[in-house]
Amino acid sequence: MRKKYFDFIIHGGDYNPDQWIRTKEIWDEDIRLMKLAGINSATVGIFSWGILEPEEGVFCFDWLDEIMEKFRKNGIAAILATPSGARPAWMALKYPEVLRVNENGIHNEYGDRHNHCLTSPVYREKVRTINRALAERYANHPALKMWHVSNEYSGECHCELCQTAFREWLKKEYNNDLNLLNDKWWTGFWSHQITDWSQISSPKDRGENHFSALKLAWRRFVTDSHISFFENEISPLRQITPDIPFTTNLMGLYGGIDYQKLASHLDIVSWDNYPDWCTGDNLYTAAQTAFVHDAFRSMKQGQPFFMMESTPSVVNQRPVNKLPPPGMQTLTALQAVSHGADSVQYFQWRSSRAGHEKYHGAVVDHRGHENTRVFREIARTGNLLSGLSQVTGTLCNSKVAIIYDWENARATEYFSGFNNKRRDYAGECVRWYMPFYKRGISVDVIAMDADYSKYDIVIAPFLYMLKPGTEERISTYVKNGGMFLSTYLLGMADRDDRCFTGGFPAGELKTVFGIEHEETDVLPEDAPGKANFNGVTYPVEHVCDIIRSTGAAVRGTYITDFYSGTPAVTENSYGKGSAVYVAFRSSDVLADDVCAYIINKTGVMPDTDIEYSGIEVRRRGDFIFCLNFTQENKTVKLKSSYTDIISGKTLSGDINIEKCGFLILKG
Amino acid sequence: MRKKYFDFIIHGGDYNPDQWIRTKEIWDEDIRLMKLAGINSATVGIFSWGILEPEEGVFCFDWLDEIMEKFRKNGIAAILATPSGARPAWMALKYPEVLRVNENGIHNEYGDRHNHCLTSPVYREKVRTINRALAERYANHPALKMWHVSNEYSGECHCELCQTAFREWLKKEYNNDLNLLNDKWWTGFWSHQITDWSQISSPKDRGENHFSALKLAWRRFVTDSHISFFENEISPLRQITPDIPFTTNLMGLYGGIDYQKLASHLDIVSWDNYPDWCTGDNLYTAAQTAFVHDAFRSMKQGQPFFMMESTPSVVNQRPVNKLPPPGMQTLTALQAVSHGADSVQYFQWRSSRAGHEKYHGAVVDHRGHENTRVFREIARTGNLLSGLSQVTGTLCNSKVAIIYDWENARATEYFSGFNNKRRDYAGECVRWYMPFYKRGISVDVIAMDADYSKYDIVIAPFLYMLKPGTEERISTYVKNGGMFLSTYLLGMADRDDRCFTGGFPAGELKTVFGIEHEETDVLPEDAPGKANFNGVTYPVEHVCDIIRSTGAAVRGTYITDFYSGTPAVTENSYGKGSAVYVAFRSSDVLADDVCAYIINKTGVMPDTDIEYSGIEVRRRGDFIFCLNFTQENKTVKLKSSYTDIISGKTLSGDINIEKCGFLILKG
Amino acid sequence: MRKKYFDFIIHGGDYNPDQWIRTKEIWDEDIRLMKLAGINSATVGIFSWGILEPEEGVFCFDWLDEIMEKFRKNGIAAILATPSGARPAWMALKYPEVLRVNENGIHNEYGDRHNHCLTSPVYREKVRTINRALAERYANHPALKMWHVSNEYSGECHCELCQTAFREWLKKEYNNDLNLLNDKWWTGFWSHQITDWSQISSPKDRGENHFSALKLAWRRFVTDSHISFFENEISPLRQITPDIPFTTNLMGLYGGIDYQKLASHLDIVSWDNYPDWCTGDNLYTAAQTAFVHDAFRSMKQGQPFFMMESTPSVVNQRPVNKLPPPGMQTLTALQAVSHGADSVQYFQWRSSRAGHEKYHGAVVDHRGHENTRVFREIARTGNLLSGLSQVTGTLCNSKVAIIYDWENARATEYFSGFNNKRRDYAGECVRWYMPFYKRGISVDVIAMDADYSKYDIVIAPFLYMLKPGTEERISTYVKNGGMFLSTYLLGMADRDDRCFTGGFPAGELKTVFGIEHEETDVLPEDAPGKANFNGVTYPVEHVCDIIRSTGAAVRGTYITDFYSGTPAVTENSYGKGSAVYVAFRSSDVLADDVCAYIINKTGVMPDTDIEYSGIEVRRRGDFIFCLNFTQENKTVKLKSSYTDIISGKTLSGDINIEKCGFLILKG
Repeated sequence: MRKKYFDFIIHGGDYNPDQWIRTKEIWDEDIRLMKLAGINSATVGIFSWGILEPEEGVFCFDWLDEIMEKFRKNGIAAILATPSGARPAWMALKYPEVLRVNENGIHNEYGDRHNHCLTSPVYREKVRTINRALAERYANHPALKMWHVSNEYSGECHCELCQTAFREWLKKEYNNDLNLLNDKWWTGFWSHQITDWSQISSPKDRGENHFSALKLAWRRFVTDSHISFFENEISPLRQITPDIPFTTNLMGLYGGIDYQKLASHLDIVSWDNYPDWCTGDNLYTAAQTAFVHDAFRSMKQGQPFFMMESTPSVVNQRPVNKLPPPGMQTLTALQAVSHGADSVQYFQWRSSRAGHEKYHGAVVDHRGHENTRVFREIARTGNLLSGLSQVTGTLCNSKVAIIYDWENARATEYFSGFNNKRRDYAGECVRWYMPFYKRGISVDVIAMDADYSKYDIVIAPFLYMLKPGTEERISTYVKNGGMFLSTYLLGMADRDDRCFTGGFPAGELKTVFGIEHEETDVLPEDAPGKANFNGVTYPVEHVCDIIRSTGAAVRGTYITDFYSGTPAVTENSYGKGSAVYVAFRSSDVLADDVCAYIINKTGVMPDTDIEYSGIEVRRRGDFIFCLNFTQENKTVKLKSSYTDIISGKTLSGDINIEKCGFLILKG
Repeated sequence: MRKKYFDFIIHGGDYNPDQWIRTKEIWDEDIRLMKLAGINSATVGIFSWGILEPEEGVFCFDWLDEIMEKFRKNGIAAILATPSGARPAWMALKYPEVLRVNENGIHNEYGDRHNHCLTSPVYREKVRTINRALAERYANHPALKMWHVSNEYSGECHCELCQTAFREWLKKEYNNDLNLLNDKWWTGFWSHQITDWSQISSPKDRGENHFSALKLAWRRFVTDSHISFFENEISPLRQITPDIPFTTNLMGLYGGIDYQKLASHLDIVSWDNYPDWCTGDNLYTAAQTAFVHDAFRSMKQGQPFFMMESTPSVVNQRPVNKLPPPGMQTLTALQAVSHGADSVQYFQWRSSRAGHEKYHGAVVDHRGHENTRVFREIARTGNLLSGLSQVTGTLCNSKVAIIYDWENARATEYFSGFNNKRRDYAGECVRWYMPFYKRGISVDVIAMDADYSKYDIVIAPFLYMLKPGTEERISTYVKNGGMFLSTYLLGMADRDDRCFTGGFPAGELKTVFGIEHEETDVLPEDAPGKANFNGVTYPVEHVCDIIRSTGAAVRGTYITDFYSGTPAVTENSYGKGSAVYVAFRSSDVLADDVCAYIINKTGVMPDTDIEYSGIEVRRRGDFIFCLNFTQENKTVKLKSSYTDIISGKTLSGDINIEKCGFLILKG
Repeated sequence: MRKKYFDFIIHGGDYNPDQWIRTKEIWDEDIRLMKLAGINSATVGIFSWGILEPEEGVFCFDWLDEIMEKFRKNGIAAILATPSGARPAWMALKYPEVLRVNENGIHNEYGDRHNHCLTSPVYREKVRTINRALAERYANHPALKMWHVSNEYSGECHCELCQTAFREWLKKEYNNDLNLLNDKWWTGFWSHQITDWSQISSPKDRGENHFSALKLAWRRFVTDSHISFFENEISPLRQITPDIPFTTNLMGLYGGIDYQKLASHLDIVSWDNYPDWCTGDNLYTAAQTAFVHDAFRSMKQGQPFFMMESTPSVVNQRPVNKLPPPGMQTLTALQAVSHGADSVQYFQWRSSRAGHEKYHGAVVDHRGHENTRVFREIARTGNLLSGLSQVTGTLCNSKVAIIYDWENARATEYFSGFNNKRRDYAGECVRWYMPFYKRGISVDVIAMDADYSKYDIVIAPFLYMLKPGTEERISTYVKNGGMFLSTYLLGMADRDDRCFTGGFPAGELKTVFGIEHEETDVLPEDAPGKANFNGVTYPVEHVCDIIRSTGAAVRGTYITDFYSGTPAVTENSYGKGSAVYVAFRSSDVLADDVCAYIINKTGVMPDTDIEYSGIEVRRRGDFIFCLNFTQENKTVKLKSSYTDIISGKTLSGDINIEKCGFLILKG
């Protein structure tokens, strides 16, 4: 597998010259401004179907030819989009089946983006046709460097075509065996025995929405529908432009599609990164963002990913869209690169005159010139990135992994019981990611069926559902010397959300952890409990397991409620390794203290020896990025000498980094 | 009418052996565990239609035969359910009319429970057929002791069959006289004159949802549809097993069906009791629960009722499902018995492996053995209940009644005006129940058209609507010496929510109470007023009547707002009795002080002479139950000697009851 | 244009004798009570279609003849309603097209009011027929003084008839030129190029709801549909009763219809006034109400308007309907008259026995007699009004105008970006109205395309959208010596919500104000910024523009965030006038201080020389109304002598006005 497609950092973004077809003089001005801003790439053609195929079968490429030629002349790498994210109005009117049907069985009308049936043969054919036309036209165009397939795949359709496809999918998934399905789905409950595949439909409130097994199956079907839709889309591209890599831009932790499954179908994974820098806790926002970067990098075994979208300044879709402080754009870009991104791209190059996103930040705003605060910051970023070309293709070598599993994310959402109000699987994973992030220890964020063997520590918060093989995978890892930490509600259900028999956690995990689950308590928001660990007291929040040690050392106990005195944190030796169980949900402080304990025990080291606090420090290749996301000045203590790549000076000792500032070191 | 069907307290619950048909070895284990837990009954067949009739007309009773035989051999009373609460998937697909249509005219798909049209001739026929088959098969089975008909009837359907049935129902209700209906519904308002019955449809937002008369009529129709559906269900049972009693499990104060009307069609009323023991005010929760017990007991003139469901530990459907403190299960059971229940039953015997309720508490949890905290508590309860057989069939003799009327509950919800945000009829009734509950004075909770003559005190909070005859019923009761207390918005509207003319309260009630209503004020949540009663000041909350005394003694006046100085509490002599009017909504303290005043005046006495505070003390038959629902230790002062039925010791003087503890006394 | 239709103040309201057709004896009692209350007019026939046309084509006027005759005999001016606001049930069943279809394409059922398709040819014909019949019957009836057309027009329909009408409307609006529409709507965004008019449908969530241009166009279509529906309604009235004036009652700032456009089709504008006197800040409520009065007066160039509805005491539709303090009804009436109303009318004369509004206040309540607090207050009001006949027809002469533009109200709602949570255009306009209101300076509330030339000051808060010509209108006004003040987000978009190019504010406005817009920041609710003006510090709330002065004098700067020190308030000389820009949203205090500054600068004077605080003082004709809406006593200082029109005494010096009291002075 290729790790590196470009030997420079792509700096570009969404570019919509077709919106300005009536005032084409702007196109040359765009090129002039791109150069000023250090832009070396542009993504064109997203949502351009209406202009590319104004009537059925009539294609109009003139404008795009002209643009591609400008790119070629000016050394701008064209990332060419397929336009399936939004269809022309004529198509929706002529072939209503291309539009979605909602849960109430009501057909959508034309409008919006992301409004297409994933199953519709007509739509798939239309997509293949336009994609083939694009590929054929630009296959040999020197500006074409990459494909951007569709845009932010999402949603689902409930039409009859999709229902039929779902049933066919189920047949495959369950070996064409209704007995198997009835057993796995436990349909004896509420008299739901299925005696014919036709009895199953997509989950919905006016039908069945209480069977988590059905909901999980539907979610998997939707993922597979997207994969199949995607493979249909790219079939002409694979054939006609086999050497041009492709991606599709994903949306962080969006749960509608299992990105960890989809990733294997992409040459490069990429995502759209819109951190909210106005929450008042920017370090936490930065950690959340870093967590997602690490998840995307880990999806393809550490291969560099793309940050396909980010905002040059502000967004328009939040309830309150405050301007981030000056400098934040550059920090956002550098953070992405430091975590393995080989691109920094924007939505959008130039503000639309109208439409839903006209007040979303753009490199060139409605004034249309370069004398703006935002333009200057983008140009600064461009300049910086051009000096970092060396990092492209560089991999990370993490000794720690956090399991954030897309399927478990859904499973922890869908079951009914215990705390129905607060689940927040992602939040728990970020909580356990934070202690490593703060210490500058690189972390991979992996699915539960990834390879654990290369890690010294694996952390699996709230690992409620176990995919087949996970039990063995964990026990083998610990047996061979690994440190595995897990938290509450571990190993309750299989991938159909059917409980394991014989007590929790499932099977051998009871021996690995040396514990047995007795009951689960839930704490109201305003009435947390308390537990201790190594002599310190911590809050017990939202949920906690009551467990019994069958051999594990008890490192902490509850000190409130009727289960006071019973184990709350345990550690068990198993084979050559250790398994730690934290039976309750608590604050960040507990996670930090427990992680300090296991870091110390395993001897895992940070990526650098720099001392600091309250900022992010991260190494990629030869570069060390010190990023201050906060509004206060911070200091780093350099124990050896480094070169500041901006000033070129040699630095050591205490160095100040101003608010929203950064330092890039080499050496 | 028989008062007693069993000479022991039924201890059992929902049992779903059919879910374990693939691992039948569990069945014998279930029997072994039932004996350990003191279980003497099991309810089987709820939601078993799919396995009983796997294809249309093909019946499969083998598994049930086997289970029934195990029950017989082990002395377990079988309560056999009819399965109409959930239907097989094949039926829904073949006969879509059995499923419901929602207010938008959209047909439901297969799924969920409680999803059947109440009118559908096909569904009624299918229900009769399966019920007949069940009855014929087990009519002479010695284990069969009772029928559990369907499950938690609820909801409604808006299909064309139901619309037609509604119109037929209206014709009967209004003497086939459109003039009558137009007059009662006051259709001159908004030009709604009905000139043909076909012009009326069920209330709905996309049609008519502003006419309370229509909404009340629809609610009555839905009640009568359920009764007719129920009578259809049990017609084969009545015929084939005339000696087997039947019930259907109801849901507390659920407002969709008039339980006070439905009750007369049942041999035994029963309900599913899920108190929330985690609100922080367990005594209030206990009083709420006691109120509902008393309502169910009163529905059938004091005849013992069944507590058909309760949880062995925790529930799964609330947002936050905290474990109740240990001991609470036993207290819940003893409270039910003390209020007249002849059963303590659970949902559920054994945890499902999957499905919506897999994390709902069960006697046997996912571990499947008896060595659990919960199992031990159930076993303790079983043991206690076996010592209380003597109470079965015992009646109560209450001298006080609270009117909680199912029809008034709807009427107080549906009108528009005054305080649209806070109505809470049930809460007001519990508020006025509390003073008696705390003093150990037994209360019946009755409909407004029940017999008042046997009570010394009748309390009717927020008696907004008067059914025909209620005015006379109240005046006769007071005339004959009764003490009648009512509160704000008394006697405004008839059962079609049409206002009485000539001022409020309606007709003769003005004389009975010696007052006339002038206006009604509303108090915002954050700006209560004040009033006094017997020299003490109380808050005026949410709503208050401005009244004029036409003869009543003024016992309290408002002291805020422009009506300061006008009457707030009045007392009027009428015939041999008294009528007290509390014109405003206030805190529990006012209710307690006013009740103290009328208790003192009428000389009503508690059921025992035990002195206590903060717990429940209640006599049933020869037993006195002292129940401490709180988390603190409490003391009871025994003025005479009693036998503690657990220790067998004779007790007197101050006796401690620990938190979540109890004392059962005899003597 | 006639300014005066009556030489006395109309005092009356909605009267529904048809609801009492079964107890007609009440009709004479009504007349007796009307006289006691000083009622000189009654509005009849609203929602009477069901009784007027009980079957298709069968008309029944007997009851109305009888009522009209009573009016004639008793000198009561009949305002006759057309009944289109609610239709008979038979019509809805026979012609379903008369009912509305919702956004989901689901047809409404019969019910409610305001449930008719605006396009349906059948409904339009039926309306013409009944209106013609009414007009023919009463054309020469001496009691008929005015038409009340329909009732509170509102809502919209999405049926196919309306879709077709919308497309025809679009063709006209966009010169039958799809290129023009595509350019204006900027349909290149999201591939929305329209290639056939049939591709456009009404905005909806299941279709297109993200294009503000479509939403604005639909809103204009709905306005025009109402105008066309209205013109259809009144065509028989115009023809048969050309001398009888007509109105339709509007609903304050209701945004569904552009009242500023509709107004030109009415002889008299009228509105339904329901201030909430229980918010705790009655002076603000009074100012809000005054603002709406002034908007209605300004809609027809100062011509007197009608207050067609108000409540005699309380309403029923709010969540919490507290009784207003005694006296408030009279104040509400006097305020209306003081702002230019020539009527004081009530909903409703007599309480309905049933129906949705039975607990809405009425002059005659359910008791049916005159001995009530409310009746006495209405009678007092009637008496007062009869002494104020002289004011009828009197015009105001305002030197100040606030632009509140119905189209801008929608535009400021529909765009996405900046602060999506807090926009509140109307609230901002009232904020800038308040300083003049408090000082007794009369203000006109006008559309942006009204004539500015007669004003000394024009204030245009949040003038985001500019209609064609507005830019020139503003610059001409300032050039000629006007003082124009505007606030944040000025002049961003045209009437299709397409941004202006070349920077904001649009075009010449940059020169008029001497500023250029750089960026817009948004402040979270809990983190306001700060700015100063003339040395005082004020909060910056929700939104602020970052601007650059290109010539304007900087009167205030920001003092927080990265744009600290940049201009926040500017003043620019342009031609003979001045343009002030307040770049941020702030508290009322800033508005008050800025207005004090420009009032001082322009020398605009209050209508009287009376000194006061915390009350409203307003002159109309020879009368000065001093209205104390608060709960405290207030003092006015009379610098010269006036006649108190109630006592007839001459007053000067300090005069007390008690809470909820008033003073009407002459001289």
